[in-house]
Order: sequence, then C-alpha cells, then structure tokens
Amino acid sequence: MRILVMNPNTTASMTASIRATATAVAAPGTEILATEPLWGPESIEGHFEGYLSAAAVLDRLATLDVPFDALVMAGFGEPGREGAQELLDVPVLDITESAAQMAMMLGHAYGIVTTLDRSVPQIRDRLLTAGLLQRCAAVRGTGLGVLELEEDPLRTVEVIVETAREVVRAGAEAVCLGCGGMAGLQEKVSAALGVPVVDGVAAAVKFAEAVVGLGLTTSTGRSFAPPRPKVIGSWPLSSHLARDAAFSQDTARHTEFSGQTSGI
Amino acid sequence: MRILVMNPNTTASMTASIRATATAVAAPGTEILATEPLWGPESIEGHFEGYLSAAAVLDRLATLDVPFDALVMAGFGEPGREGAQELLDVPVLDITESAAQMAMMLGHAYGIVTTLDRSVPQIRDRLLTAGLLQRCAAVRGTGLGVLELEEDPLRTVEVIVETAREVVRAGAEAVCLGCGGMAGLQEKVSAALGVPVVDGVAAAVKFAEAVVGLGLTTSTGRSFAPPRPKVIGSWPLSSHLARDAAFSQDTARHTEFSGQTSGI
Amino acid sequence: MRILVMNPNTTASMTASIRATATAVAAPGTEILATEPLWGPESIEGHFEGYLSAAAVLDRLATLDVPFDALVMAGFGEPGREGAQELLDVPVLDITESAAQMAMMLGHAYGIVTTLDRSVPQIRDRLLTAGLLQRCAAVRGTGLGVLELEEDPLRTVEVIVETAREVVRAGAEAVCLGCGGMAGLQEKVSAALGVPVVDGVAAAVKFAEAVVGLGLTTSTGRSFAPPRPKVIGSWPLSSHLARDAAFSQDTARHTEFSGQTSGI
Amino acid sequence: MRILVMNPNTTASMTASIRATATAVAAPGTEILATEPLWGPESIEGHFEGYLSAAAVLDRLATLDVPFDALVMAGFGEPGREGAQELLDVPVLDITESAAQMAMMLGHAYGIVTTLDRSVPQIRDRLLTAGLLQRCAAVRGTGLGVLELEEDPLRTVEVIVETAREVVRAGAEAVCLGCGGMAGLQEKVSAALGVPVVDGVAAAVKFAEAVVGLGLTTSTGRSFAPPRPKVIGSWPLSSHLARDAAFSQDTARHTEFSGQTSGI
Amino acid sequence: MRILVMNPNTTASMTASIRATATAVAAPGTEILATEPLWGPESIEGHFEGYLSAAAVLDRLATLDVPFDALVMAGFGEPGREGAQELLDVPVLDITESAAQMAMMLGHAYGIVTTLDRSVPQIRDRLLTAGLLQRCAAVRGTGLGVLELEEDPLRTVEVIVETAREVVRAGAEAVCLGCGGMAGLQEKVSAALGVPVVDGVAAAVKFAEAVVGLGLTTSTGRSFAPPRPKVIGSWPLSSHLARDAAFSQDTARHTEFSGQTSGI
Amino acid sequence: MRILVMNPNTTASMTASIRATATAVAAPGTEILATEPLWGPESIEGHFEGYLSAAAVLDRLATLDVPFDALVMAGFGEPGREGAQELLDVPVLDITESAAQMAMMLGHAYGIVTTLDRSVPQIRDRLLTAGLLQRCAAVRGTGLGVLELEEDPLRTVEVIVETAREVVRAGAEAVCLGCGGMAGLQEKVSAALGVPVVDGVAAAVKFAEAVVGLGLTTSTGRSFAPPRPKVIGSWPLSSHLARDAAFSQDTARHTEFSGQTSGI
Repeated sequence: MRILVMNPNTTASMTASIRATATAVAAPGTEILATEPLWGPESIEGHFEGYLSAAAVLDRLATLDVPFDALVMAGFGEPGREGAQELLDVPVLDITESAAQMAMMLGHAYGIVTTLDRSVPQIRDRLLTAGLLQRCAAVRGTGLGVLELEEDPLRTVEVIVETAREVVRAGAEAVCLGCGGMAGLQEKVSAALGVPVVDGVAAAVKFAEAVVGLGLTTSTGRSFAPPRPKVIGSWPLSSHLARDAAFSQDTARHTEFSGQTSGI
Repeated sequence: MRILVMNPNTTASMTASIRATATAVAAPGTEILATEPLWGPESIEGHFEGYLSAAAVLDRLATLDVPFDALVMAGFGEPGREGAQELLDVPVLDITESAAQMAMMLGHAYGIVTTLDRSVPQIRDRLLTAGLLQRCAAVRGTGLGVLELEEDPLRTVEVIVETAREVVRAGAEAVCLGCGGMAGLQEKVSAALGVPVVDGVAAAVKFAEAVVGLGLTTSTGRSFAPPRPKVIGSWPLSSHLARDAAFSQDTARHTEFSGQTSGI
Repeated sequence: MRILVMNPNTTASMTASIRATATAVAAPGTEILATEPLWGPESIEGHFEGYLSAAAVLDRLATLDVPFDALVMAGFGEPGREGAQELLDVPVLDITESAAQMAMMLGHAYGIVTTLDRSVPQIRDRLLTAGLLQRCAAVRGTGLGVLELEEDPLRTVEVIVETAREVVRAGAEAVCLGCGGMAGLQEKVSAALGVPVVDGVAAAVKFAEAVVGLGLTTSTGRSFAPPRPKVIGSWPLSSHLARDAAFSQDTARHTEFSGQTSGI
Repeated sequence: MRILVMNPNTTASMTASIRATATAVAAPGTEILATEPLWGPESIEGHFEGYLSAAAVLDRLATLDVPFDALVMAGFGEPGREGAQELLDVPVLDITESAAQMAMMLGHAYGIVTTLDRSVPQIRDRLLTAGLLQRCAAVRGTGLGVLELEEDPLRTVEVIVETAREVVRAGAEAVCLGCGGMAGLQEKVSAALGVPVVDGVAAAVKFAEAVVGLGLTTSTGRSFAPPRPKVIGSWPLSSHLARDAAFSQDTARHTEFSGQTSGI
Repeated sequence: MRILVMNPNTTASMTASIRATATAVAAPGTEILATEPLWGPESIEGHFEGYLSAAAVLDRLATLDVPFDALVMAGFGEPGREGAQELLDVPVLDITESAAQMAMMLGHAYGIVTTLDRSVPQIRDRLLTAGLLQRCAAVRGTGLGVLELEEDPLRTVEVIVETAREVVRAGAEAVCLGCGGMAGLQEKVSAALGVPVVDGVAAAVKFAEAVVGLGLTTSTGRSFAPPRPKVIGSWPLSSHLARDAAFSQDTARHTEFSGQTSGI
Repeated sequence: MRILVMNPNTTASMTASIRATATAVAAPGTEILATEPLWGPESIEGHFEGYLSAAAVLDRLATLDVPFDALVMAGFGEPGREGAQELLDVPVLDITESAAQMAMMLGHAYGIVTTLDRSVPQIRDRLLTAGLLQRCAAVRGTGLGVLELEEDPLRTVEVIVETAREVVRAGAEAVCLGCGGMAGLQEKVSAALGVPVVDGVAAAVKFAEAVVGLGLTTSTGRSFAPPRPKVIGSWPLSSHLARDAAFSQDTARHTEFSGQTSGI
C-alpha cells in the first residue's frame, strides 16, 4: 500500500524528516510518499497560518496525479482534515488525533508537549472537536518555535523532556510529541522520561496501515460526503498561480526535491 | 463606526442580501461595508469549501485597503474566525456564535435551522469549540441548499418554519437561522412560529457595535497573538492570481459591484 | 430606549456608581435609569443574601410604575434573573452572563476576579447553569468585601490587578470584573494588566441595546412563560411593608435619591 | 431527633400531606415537624414564584423559635437550599437532590415526572448545579398543575404512570416523583409501573436521619459559611409585615394549623 | 434489619475494623454482619487485585446461607458493585459512591484522600461512571499502602490530615476517607482539619438503612436484571476450591473468626 | 509478532470464530493465538458474568506458558482490561475501545449495535471511562442473546442491519458490531447498510500490530504499574481448581481444542 504523508508547511527539510520517520515505521510492503504544499507558510504557529495551510494542502491534494491508499496529515493541531476527507476516497489520518488515540492505548491519561504556548488552546480545541480531550491531562509549550526545533537537536530534546516532566506531573501516563517537526525524537525523549512517548507521524502511519488493511475508508454518508458540483473561482489555486513565473520556479523546486526521494 | 461584513462565498447577490440585513439593523452612525472573497466557492456546503473559503476570506482581508472598526464573518458554521482575529486588530464577530449568544439571552435553550443535513455536525462542532453547545437543544437541516434559498422565498420560509417547529419540540425556546443566506427572513419565521428568531448577521452587527462601543478588541495575549514574521509563499494569493487575466476580470467585477453600494 | 439598571443591594452609593458606568457606555438615545430594592441586604456576599435580594428585586420590579425597554441586573453571581424574565415582557440581561459572553468575544478563554472567595463556587454555578462555564479558565477572589471596594480605590485596583494576573496565568485571555461594585475600574485594570477587561454592567447595557435594537425579547414559550394567576400572600411585599412607618421613611429616601439623578 | 419539613408554598393541605409522608417513613425516635411560609405563593410553578418562596422560606426559618436537628426542603426544583445552609447549623436536605441521589442507588439511570412542562428546564438546572444530572435519563411534565394534583387522585396516579412510562422508555431504571405534592403516591405508581419509584420527601427524611445519625452537618468552610454581619432592611420580613392586620390574621391561621398537628 | 458489610480483601483484622465502624453507626434495630472473601488478595491496590476481589466477593455472596436486607461493599474504588446488584434482590451500597453522595450533602464540592497514588485514576473512574465526579475537587494519595494504615495509627492520621489539607486547598468543602481501612479515623481527621470528614463505611450503612427503611431495592428492569440461566464452569468457585485441603483450612479459619463476632 | 486473542467466555465455537476473524485480518508475519478461560460463564450478558469473566481471563493469562507480543481482549463492554495491563508487559487492546477508535477514524460520530438491551448502559459506561463516549451517537440492542447469534446467521445479519439503520438515523456515520460473537459479519452488514462497519476484533488486531510495530507498550508509571508483591489466597485459581477432577477434564478439552488450531 502507498501512504501519502503531507507536511502542512513549505519547509522541505521538515518534509524530509517527516518522511524519514514515516519510512522507518512503515510495515514491509508500505510505500511512503511525502510532500508539502506549493504555497503557504514555511511553518505553522497559529490559526492564520493554519487556515492558509489547510487550503494549500487541499490545493496540493487536488492537483497531485499520483495514486495513494491513505493520507497522513502531519500538522499538529492544524485544521483541514475534514476537507481532505471530503475530497478523497481514501482514509485520512491526522497526527494530532492519531497521537492522542495511540497514547490512550498505552496509559490512562496522556499529555502533549508542543512548540509555542500560543498553540496550546488550538491543540486542545482540535482534540475537543475530535472527542479525544477527556483523557488529556495537559498540553504544554516548550517555548521553541517550529523551525527552532531543528537548530540545536540536543537542546531540543532537553527542553522537550523538561516540559514532558511537567505534563507527567499533571497526570499524563503517556506523552505525545506535539509537532510534526519533532518526529524522530520519541526514543530519546522516552529514554530520558521513563514514560511511553508517541510521535504522531509514526502513529498515523500505523493507523493508516490498519484502516487500509481492513479495507475501510471514510464514511460518505453525512459529514464527509464528497463536495457538491459548483463553481469554485480560481480553483485549483496552484494551476492559476502557475501563470506567475516566480511560483513556477518554486513549484519546480518542490517537485524536484520530492521526486528525488519518493517519486512524487 | 464602520463594520465590514464578509460574505464567505463569491455569490454577489448573497453579499447584497447580507448587506441589506446588516444595514437595516445598524445603529445610527454605523456604516456597513459588505464584500466577498475574490476567489473560492460560490456557496459553502461542507468542510472542503469551508476551508477554501477561510483562506479566501483571509486573503481578502489582507489586501483590502479600507479601514474598519469591526469584522462580521457571515458564514454559518464556517471555519476561519480565529485566523481573522490574529490578522486584524479590530474585533471579529462570527454569525454562528453571535446567533447562539443572542438566542441564549432570550430563552433557556436554543436551536438552529440550517440548509443541508451534512452541515449539522459541522455547526455543532463550531459551537462546541466556542463553548456554546451546552444549551443547544437541536440543529436541523431543511434540505435546501444555500443557493436554493433564494429561488422560491415563500417556499423557503415554509420549509424553515416546519423545521423550526421540530427544533422547538426538541426544547428550543429561541431559534437561530443557520445560514447567512437566510438573513432577512427572521420576522416572517418568527411570526409563523411564535418563538423569537435570531438572524446571525443581525446579531453579529449589534454585538460588533457593542464591543466597539466599549472600546474593546481581541486579546493578543495568547491564542490570537498576531502572526509571527515569516515567509509565506505566494501570499497574498490574490496579488499573485492577479497576473492571471481571467482572475483580474473577476476582481474588477467584484470591486465594481461592492463599490456601487457601499464604498468598498 | 430606556434601560433600567437594578443594583441588587440597598446601598445607594453603589447604585450611583453603577448608574455612572451604565450612563458612560450608553449609546446616544439610550436613557439609563438605576435603582435598588426597597428592602434587603446592603451588600450580597453569599447565597442567603442573594436569595433575599432576588425577592427584593422582584418586589421592586413589581411595584415600579415607570416603563422601560430592558432590564440590566447588576449583581454578579446573584440569583433572580429567571424570575424577572417571567415577570417582565422586556429583555433581561444579567451582568454575570453578559460579562462572560463579551469576554468570549475577545479571547479564547476568560477569567473572573471577584470579591470574597466564598462567592467563587456561587459564580461558577451561575455560569454552569447559563451554559457559559466551558471557556472559563478561573474564578478568583481578591479577599475584599463588596463594601470595602469603595474604601481605598487605589488599593482596590492594585489587588484586582494582582488577582487578575493569577487568572491570566491560569489561561484567561480576557478578564471580567466579578462584582457590580467594581464598575468603572475596567480601564485602570486593563492598562495595568495588558489584557482586555470586561465590566459586566457595561457589557449588559450594550447587550440590552443590541437585543432591543433588533426588536427581540424573552421567549415566553416555556421556561419564562408569565406567572400563572394565583394567590400570593402579602404580595407585593413593599406595599404591605409600607404600613410600617420605618419602612416608609426608607422608601422615601430611596425614591428621592433615584429621582434626583435619573427620573425614577 | 427532630426534622423540620418545610413546604415551600402556603397551601396548608399540602403541608399536611407532606407531613403525613414524612411521618410515615420516619424512624422510631424521629419527630417530624412540618410548616410552610407565612407569605408567598400558594403553589410554585416557575422561577418567579420559586424565588419569592425561597425568601419566604428563609424568613420562616429566621423567625421560628423551635429547635430542630435537620431541615428538609420539600419544593421540587425550587431554589433556596444554599441560603438555608448558610443560615442554619444543622444539615439541610432538598427533595430534588435527595430523590435523585436515592434513585441513583437503585438503578443505573433515573428519570423524573413533574407537574408542568415549564418546570422541566428548571429542574434540570437544579440537578446540573447539584452535580447530579449525568445519570438523569429524562424529566417530563404531566401537564397537571401543582394544586390540580389533589383534585382527582385516581386520575393523578394514572397520568403520572403514563408519563413515567415515557421516562422509562428514555432509559430511566428508577423514577422520582417531581413535586412535593405527589408525596404519598409512590407505592401506587410503582405498583403500576414495575420500577422503583422515589418520593423526594421520603428520601430526604431518611437522608436527614443518616446525616444526623453520623453527627455530621454542613461545611462552613467556604460556600456555606454563615452570613456576615450587616444591615438587612426590613428583615425579618414577617416581623415587619406583622404590623399589617391582614398578615397577622394569616399568621395566626398558619400557627394554629401547624400547632394542632405537630407542635410548631 | 440486617446489613451485611463485605470487606473486599481477605485480611480479617480489616474486616474487624470495618465491622466496628459499621456497628458504631448502626441505628437501634440494625444488625451488622461483616465478612470477607474466602480467597483473593490480602489488600487491593490496583486493577488486577480489584478484579480478582470482585469475583471473590461475588463467590462469597453466592455461597452465604444467611439472609440479610442490604449489602455494603467496603472497598474504596473497587469494581464489582453492579455484579452484586444483579445477583441479589436486596439493595447494594458501595462505599465509594456513598462517601461521595454524603459529602455532596455537606458541601459544594468534595475531595478524597486515599492510599497510593496509583489508585487515584481508578477512584476517579468509578466516580465518573457513577455520575458523581462533577463536584469532586480532588483525589489525592497519602503514599501509605492499605496494610500500612494499621501500622502506626498516629502517623496515619497525621498523613491523612496533611493530604486532606491539599484537597481542601483544591476546593473541597468536605473530605472522604478513600479506603475501607481508614474506617474509624473520621473524627480525629475532622477535628484536626476543621472540615466535615466522611467515612464511606459509615455513610453506606446509613444509606442502606435509608433505602431499606423505604422498602426500596435495586431496579431489575434493565442494567441490573438477574443473570440469565446459563452454564458457568466451576461456579461457585469456593465449592470447587473446597476440594483442596489448604483452602478448606482457610475457610474454616474465616468462618470461625466471623462467627465469634457477628454470627456469620 | 504473535497476538493472543482472548475470548472472555468458555464457548469454544466462539473462540474459533474470533480466531478466524483475527487471522483473516492479520498482516503477513503476524501469528494469531486464540483461547478462552478455563472456567466461568459460557456467554456474558451482564455485569455479574462480566466480573466473573474478568477474573477467569486474568487467571488464564497468569497461567499461560506461551509468549506473545500483544493481547486482544475480545469481550465487548466487558471489564478486566486494566487488570491485564497491570499483569502483562505487552500492550493490551480491548475490542470495545478499538472498535470505537477505528470508527472515529472513519466518520464524525459512530454507533454500536449489540446483543441485549441490558448491555447498553454497560457498554456506554466502558466508553465513558475510556474517554470515547463523546462522539457515540447511539448504542442499541438487537434483542438477540450472545449464543443466539450463531443460530441463524441470515436472520442475525438482518436483525443487525435493521438495528444499525436506527443507529445511523441517530447520527452514526460508522457502525461498530458490539459483540465478539458478531466477528465476521462486518462485510455483509456494511454492504446492506451503505456505511462503514467496524468489527472490534479486527480493529484490535490491527491496532495491536500498530502498537507493537512502534515498539510501544503500556505505561507502568501510574495506573497500570505491576501488582505489588502480596499474598493472594488460592491464586492462580485454575491451579487450585485443578485438584478437582471435573475441572481437569474441562481444562484438557480446552487445551486440546486450542492446541489443534493455534498452538496454545
């Protein structure tokens, strides 16, 4: 089976790190593709960027010409998942929800360590809407911005562990890494913390394998019925943006990068 | 004071009807501007279109060069409000929440009559996130699509009244019209129903006057802090799309229309 | 339009301060009347006094012979609002709920700073019943009694700011002043705190203007149907109490005071 | 031990029926006193009357000169309990909460059959505040007013049973009689229904015996601390009202009636 | 009436202490029997032991040949109550729920002091399922194991009081002793704490008297209908275990001990 | 990896059917073992049998001498999962929770079709405790007992589809089969219903693969710490029961059966 992992921001190094994590946990026979939007913010730290990213991700999905069996959305706390569920006929797994669900399989309550404090209410709201907040003991920010995570990996792990300790004191028995950019750190954090640590990308990939493995997909009966036929001005955006020379350069770069590693 | 009312879809006749409702209820001294996005869906009936619209609305807001004192977002159940709160330093009122809040001032429980059944869970989720679901007795769809509302106004009122009766039987003591396109029907529905009926556009305009009247605005302390400086590819989208001839034609038409009636 | 603001206690200086706040925020064309009960406690700090006050307020409303378009009940956390909604055919706004509702328009979560710690559970219960508790981050007491608020205004502001800081640390992005007697301090507190501060009296006046402006009023369909005809012994109480000389003296004093400033 | 049972309305025949139920279930050694307020509504069917009654009950409690070991408040869904807890140093049991608590000892979920539909939201709110709503499957009105309950006892039982059947279909495994005036009907209703039926007066008397039996009483640490010393105008009301000849006649009648049966 | 109090573990000294507490609070005319399972853990500190104990208690109940009018289950936070409700036709009171219910009669919010921290989530889950968690301010562990409670009674009281102080700071107005093995300490803890303290065994005995006193018992309509006839291998376990010589010795010892003090 | 699937009742044909379902969905490289308790009820329809089964399952787990990498507990709505989590150091997946979690990946709300109506509250309670009830639209019984499910497979599917339609009308977008004995029917039910149908055994096997695939296991930090060393009388039960000749015959039969098909 082929799982597409979508980094919600345009930072290619983050796509690479997310792809690496996804590939590392994929079962034999699972192919991982990873990509990112052709436009939008280089990182997502708030609602404004989250909403831009949601549209950019949907645009990317609408214009991809490669088949896949499941989508993993790799933005923690980001909106957009429901839109992808309407657009696609394959299952869609979001790392926020997947992390929480896997953590709930491991301990009575779970907690989340994220980047900036401003994202805490946003993450809690996504979990509330998903019906997964009840057993969340705490969500805490490390104070590190998304792109700072990659700057000093040692310090990043230290700060995450420190914040995770607070989350455990608040009652969490399992801890989720609350940013796609933290993918790959779960083992180091867990070793230092002595508590199971869940990376959302890894969890979502395994859950995608599980859903596809059972031949199941999104219900089209109500909330996630396909969009009705109608006029959508300038859609898909990237096709229209493509008439802009600068954009085409960007697109080329993205395509090239992704093409090298995973065939998109 | 000047209140900008944003129709989330590109249908100009709906902008006109929303503007008329907003103008009718505005206090002396309140100027109403109304506009719509320059791209995106002609109506919103689901998550996919809602997310596109959220980005299109933010794009429109980022490129408007007219000052205003408050924003009213006229999409019922649509996402995006939090993004506008980060982007702007004036208060933002969403008609979903405003309708519910005003209804809670009038009766112990409230209900909502919306367009399609598929929007019911989406509306409930917005209310849940807003902390306003507890006193919601029921959300029900009429089965009419957004653009069908304008087709046969008499039939539209009949169908809304019928559905509102179910909502009242479920415990609602006040009923909200659950679509920006129903603006203007509240009196007819209320007369037939015998229960207060709240139009979200009207409610949001009055609440915008209330918040501005007290000199208050969105808290920038945490959730709605302004976006951090960063690279956002192809942003604002409409400036890049403008290099596409077809888009420019559309834009011209929008600008012209709005210019005639309200000065944008 | 004419809004009646009801101080729930018998302290005339507090009525004056509440009237001043209400008048300061009223729109052009809004007339503010303010009054207080003819009997009952001089301040309300607990349930016993709250219940006495509720009856005294209803008694005052039943015997007033001046017309008005909306009632603002200026007791924070006090019971009685639902009774006034049954008795009157004009909208009734309670400052507890209005403060919370306006705060929810400004930030993701809100908090409340009140007088004594003993009132905290009482306030939380009123918000719970009103369906507004979900986004309340914290309610905290300053330790100052209601009548102490007026003693040393500088110290009062300091103590409120200090307590408000705790409330913000608990997650509040907007802070409500949790006592009618704090009306007028919102600007000083907000300036020191850096977070929007809502005074319930001000909020309720603006919401009263909003509801009346839309021609809406309380639903009489169920919870707030008018009282059924029946025998009520010694009602209205003040008419019967009036045969007591001491009471008549009091009444005279009240009437005179209110008459001077606002026409009741 | 001596338990005072307070009928919240002024209808002496209802006091008698409540006293009879209380006496019938009292343990050997428990003396039941029953009384009613000296002023206020003859029955309580809504918030307005409920708030008047709360003050009238507190007035009655403040002026009684007979000692007792616990108070049972016999109004279903009525406010006031917290005020009595502050005023008295003996335990206070409310029949709304006692009925629900006993029903929760008997079945997984419970339901309530009350008088008028308008009281349903009021009762639910009291249970919500008391923290007892979670396991409430349904509250339903019979359509009978409080004073109609006594008119045709056979018909009353029939209508209660009919409504109780709906409540059971909604998931209730035990049913509470939701009006003090239904005291005494529990056996007939239970026999017809085949499900345990709880009368709140009976439940509260037994719980009062339980609390007193353990030497426990209301916590004075926070919510229910005694009222602070302060001026309360015209308090106690009945002492001031007594200067009114008509009132004194009423009082005499009440006193006489109660004196005959139970010593107050 | 005769109340059977079931210690869920096999430690006879704990049965004795529970019996003493129950006997001390029983009304005249109430006979207390106390016993423990014939097999299973000597104390319960977690889910594994809790589930073993639940089956051992049901086995004990299924093989007792002494009639009783109500069962009190004296394990705090332990599972099993619903099973006993199906098996027996007399009311079943669990000390976890009884403690919480009585505490809710005494203060606005309550808290629990238990043994080990690992039991905290287990206790919260039992209260959640019972619909009694809403007004629980805090559950805290003392760090003392169940059998350590009896080792140094003075130190035990000190540690409980210390932990109870934290619980009160978290908002509790009444405190429950969260272990059957703490029965008998409520007065000492309450004296030191200045807040009402509820022992679950005492509360459950009084509530059993209340329910039996009203002639009520468990609803058999749905959740707690009697078990359907079917094959249950090796049931009752103790009858089969009895063919093991060691087990019979144990049984003999239990019977002898209980026989001396209370007639089982 | 090797997954042990535990049928909670002693009916070997049900073990076989559960094993077949588990084997059918297992990934290449996953070995399925299936077994059942050595004593206890032949089917579980209520709390009493559920608690017996929980102990019998723990007994079976304590005495198995075959290694495995994860446990799937195949009783829908049954207690015991937390005990197994304490006892084992491999992950434990319960089919109730796994079914709900997978359904939440497929639709906005889910529903459950179970056997008898008496199990409905029990299932809801398990989901409530697991933090998964919020998005449950309905749980409904078919009226078929557990062992009746196998009697007339065609009729069974019909009745399940009929009940599932009610659940969909109540808002479910995905439906869970609420009994381990329904394993294998998901495709037929889904085909007739037009909505995704989740079998809990299948879901739990895939989730077990997911958790094991990530190298994760139950947190031992708090709720699910291993049992403390202590005396447990007659434990493990099956070793003591084994001295009973009849029991040994049973055991032999179980072992033989399981041995033939899956190596236990």
